[in-house]
Amino acid sequence: MTAYTATVTVRLKRGVLDPEAETTRRALERLGFSLEALRSADRFEIDLEAASADEAADRADEMAERLLANPTIHDYDVAVDER
Amino acid sequence: MTAYTATVTVRLKRGVLDPEAETTRRALERLGFSLEALRSADRFEIDLEAASADEAADRADEMAERLLANPTIHDYDVAVDER
Repeated sequence: MTAYTATVTVRLKRGVLDPEAETTRRALERLGFSLEALRSADRFEIDLEAASADEAADRADEMAERLLANPTIHDYDVAVDER
Repeated sequence: MTAYTATVTVRLKRGVLDPEAETTRRALERLGFSLEALRSADRFEIDLEAASADEAADRADEMAERLLANPTIHDYDVAVDER
């Protein structure tokens, strides 16, 4: 078994309103920053042991499907690094 | 001016309690997943125009300092890609 860190990034799908990101964008503009858009995402870094990077990615993918992301409103991606 | 996307990742510092991540970890274990640790982070993807990648990174860094991160409890890093 090898130690891996799987990073799951969960984003709102295009078209889903994100009032928190919109508020953050406006607050940055009020502070004088100029920006075109701001998107927010949740990032989960999961330490796990697996026989291979592929197995670690499969397990992280299943965690995203079952708990971390809501497929109705979220897209996600998974990246795996050896620890 | 070139179009860049700056990605700011905001994490809790080591030693700061993260009850939300702890709850997520336990929920994954209850679903039958085995994992050693789970850390959560916020990720902001900011579209902005700047004269250079360095300037874009400097501005994103200042946004993190002034609004996106709380230096008492958070660490952050900034990555910049051309759009």
